[in-house]
Parts: sequence; structure tokens; C-alpha cells
Amino acid sequence: MSTVKVISNILEANDRIARQNTAMFATAGVYVVNLMSSPGAGKTSLLERTVEALKSKLRMAVIEGDIQSSVDAERIGRHGIQAIQINTGGACHLDGNLIRDAVEELSLRELDLLVVENVGNLVCPAEFKLGEDIKAMILSVTEGDDKPLKYPLMFQESAALLINKVDLLPYVNCSVERIEERALALNPKLRIFRVSCTTGEGLDAWTAWLADQVSGKRPRDRA
Amino acid sequence: MSTVKVISNILEANDRIARQNTAMFATAGVYVVNLMSSPGAGKTSLLERTVEALKSKLRMAVIEGDIQSSVDAERIGRHGIQAIQINTGGACHLDGNLIRDAVEELSLRELDLLVVENVGNLVCPAEFKLGEDIKAMILSVTEGDDKPLKYPLMFQESAALLINKVDLLPYVNCSVERIEERALALNPKLRIFRVSCTTGEGLDAWTAWLADQVSGKRPRDRA
Repeated sequence: MSTVKVISNILEANDRIARQNTAMFATAGVYVVNLMSSPGAGKTSLLERTVEALKSKLRMAVIEGDIQSSVDAERIGRHGIQAIQINTGGACHLDGNLIRDAVEELSLRELDLLVVENVGNLVCPAEFKLGEDIKAMILSVTEGDDKPLKYPLMFQESAALLINKVDLLPYVNCSVERIEERALALNPKLRIFRVSCTTGEGLDAWTAWLADQVSGKRPRDRA
Repeated sequence: MSTVKVISNILEANDRIARQNTAMFATAGVYVVNLMSSPGAGKTSLLERTVEALKSKLRMAVIEGDIQSSVDAERIGRHGIQAIQINTGGACHLDGNLIRDAVEELSLRELDLLVVENVGNLVCPAEFKLGEDIKAMILSVTEGDDKPLKYPLMFQESAALLINKVDLLPYVNCSVERIEERALALNPKLRIFRVSCTTGEGLDAWTAWLADQVSGKRPRDRA
């Protein structure tokens, strides 16, 4: 019982910091996406594709969360935008505090879109708000179509679901229809995109939708 | 700072319970494997294959850990061995306490091998001992060869690494050699198996090795 109490205190403290982050992002007029998935589902590959598609239209930056290493920030940095690496040193998710510190390295007012790539984990990141506008998640078809049944919270919390690696569908036992049906049962408003970050399939719909979300937030004088 | 303190208290309390579990398993002469991986890497598929290969030689049972649902226990139960489902109700890993409770449903002295399938998560399960003899982990080639760099603890803690889905290697950008090199740099004693739970490739070596580990623990009068 005491364990549960401790966890809820941690979550409450985090929610407070996340609300401060939300206010800071609103003042700066920057749209923030918290991108989550299992390890290896394709978060960094999706970001590379998204940056290439949108960097001429939107001023973007990325915050990378990993337990250790700076592999991902280096990959993003090669695309010519600013990438900040957070190393959690063991922790399995980002939290509001880590984001607040990382944001100090950025000129928020000069950004339209900030994407935070969370630690690869289909569980814990869904519980910790960062101050984001939306959560988006990736599920790759190689993970199987039972994942909404087993990890419901992330599907419930996300505004967008990217079903990635659809180019591998011929070789795996996974039904995209079943993923969609199960995900929508948990979250009827979920916006779903079938994509392949290898072939590029389906990514135009995702980047167009994301650009629309961003322009909905931008202050009038900058739109 | 207070967050860190709380987490270390939780881990210490868990270690105490895990040590009691270890003593209980030793008295019963049952060998216990804590099986960990990302969601969808193939834990349940590996268990189905392992049960089929070993159930005529070893008396086996499985404890399934999931946030919710009993999908996995039902899959294992179809193979004619006892399967207990733990629903963590949100928690991202199993702990010693959950195992102690689940074990009450089993007749430990009538078992040779108990496999615990942890919650799909490449981070947190590695921190919480259950009282197991060994940890084993699965990494699927669809997750990419950078995972040892980004999630080192699980590679350091595991006695065996199963590199799964090798049948998909022609379709993904992943080097098995690089996974092995990076994993062995973290843990030179790691025993590595390249397998496909779809085609069955490489599983004989895994099940033979596992059976050897079990027979090394069994009390003399039962060996």
C-alpha cells in the first residue's frame, strides 16, 4: 500500500511541473509532441522523415530521451535542426523536470514545433506528463496486434497512433485491422496512420496532419 | 533528490523479498528463469516453443506478467502446463511480492522449471529481482542493433540473450554481429542464441542449454 502512495505523490509532483511547462510553451507559441513507443518501433526514423518533410515550413527542434548514449540526437542533428539529448541515467521515462531543464538549451520563441522522443517503453512514459500538446505513439507491426489489449494506457492517452513497418506485413503474423479495431475501442478519437519509415509509405498524411495541428496553435501574428 | 531516495528504498525492500523467494525455490529444487524483453519481441512465442520441446523431460509451469489481460496465460495453457497470470494493474514490471503471491497457486515441489514472463519492457524489469536463478532476455532483430547501447542494464543482468526473428533479417536494417559485439562488450559471459520462433531455427541449442542449467540445480535424488 505504501508503494502506491509514493507513486501517486511522484505523479502529482510531476503534474505540477508539467502544467508550468504547458504555460511556458503556450507563451512561446510552440507546439509540443511527446512521441512514445517500445524500443525499436521507429521513433527516431519517424522523426528523421518528419524533419525532412517539415523543416522548410516549420522551425523545429527535437529533445531526445534515452537512458544513456547520444546516438539518437546525433542522427537528428545530421538533418540540420537542433537536437538536445537527455540521458536519464537509468530512469525508464522522461518527466516534466527533465524537459524543463532541457528546454533551457533552446530558444523556444524561435520554434514552431518541438518533438520530444521519449525513452523506448510502452508503459511508464504514458503516466508522466511533460507539458505537451499531444502524445503520439508508434506501434510497429512486428510487435503484434495484441498490444492494445496489453498496454492500454498509452493508446488511451495518445492523440495519434502510427502503425509503422507496414512494409513487413507480408512476413509477420499481424493484422493491422485488428490493431485499429482494438485501439479505437480504447480511444475512439485516436487518429491512426499506417506508415513505413523505410519506404516512406503513408508519411505524407502524417506530416500534413501534424502541420495542421501546429498551425492551429501558432499565435495569429506568426501564422 | 527525494525521488531517488524513494526508488532505492523500494528496490531494497524488493531485494529482501526476492532473497526469501530464492530460498523457497532452492528448498523446492525448482529452477526459475525471469524472461524479459520489449513488448512484442516474442517472449510468449519462445515459451510456447520451449514448453513443447521440454515438457516431456521437465515438469514445467509459467507465470505470466501483464499490465492487464490474460491472453498470454491462455496461450501457454493450451500447451498443457500450468500457467498463472499476474495482472499488475498498471505497473511496468513484476516484483518479488507479486511472484510470492503467484507461487501460492503452484505445487513447487512437483516442478523442475518455472519460467516467469515479465511485463514487456526493456528497462524496469531488469531492476527488480524476483528470486530467479537466471534472467534471460530476448531482442528481436526488428528492434535494431543499437539496443545494447541504449538499454545496457538488461544486457548486463542477463545470463542468456536470444536474438529472435532472424527469419526477418533480409527485410530489416540490423546486423546480428553488431548486436552480439555490443552485448558482449557489456557482459562478456552472456550466452547468445540466434533464433526464430516462427521457423524454429536455433531453438534446439537454447532448449538444450536451458535443460542443462535445470539439471545442474535439481537435488541429487530427483536428477
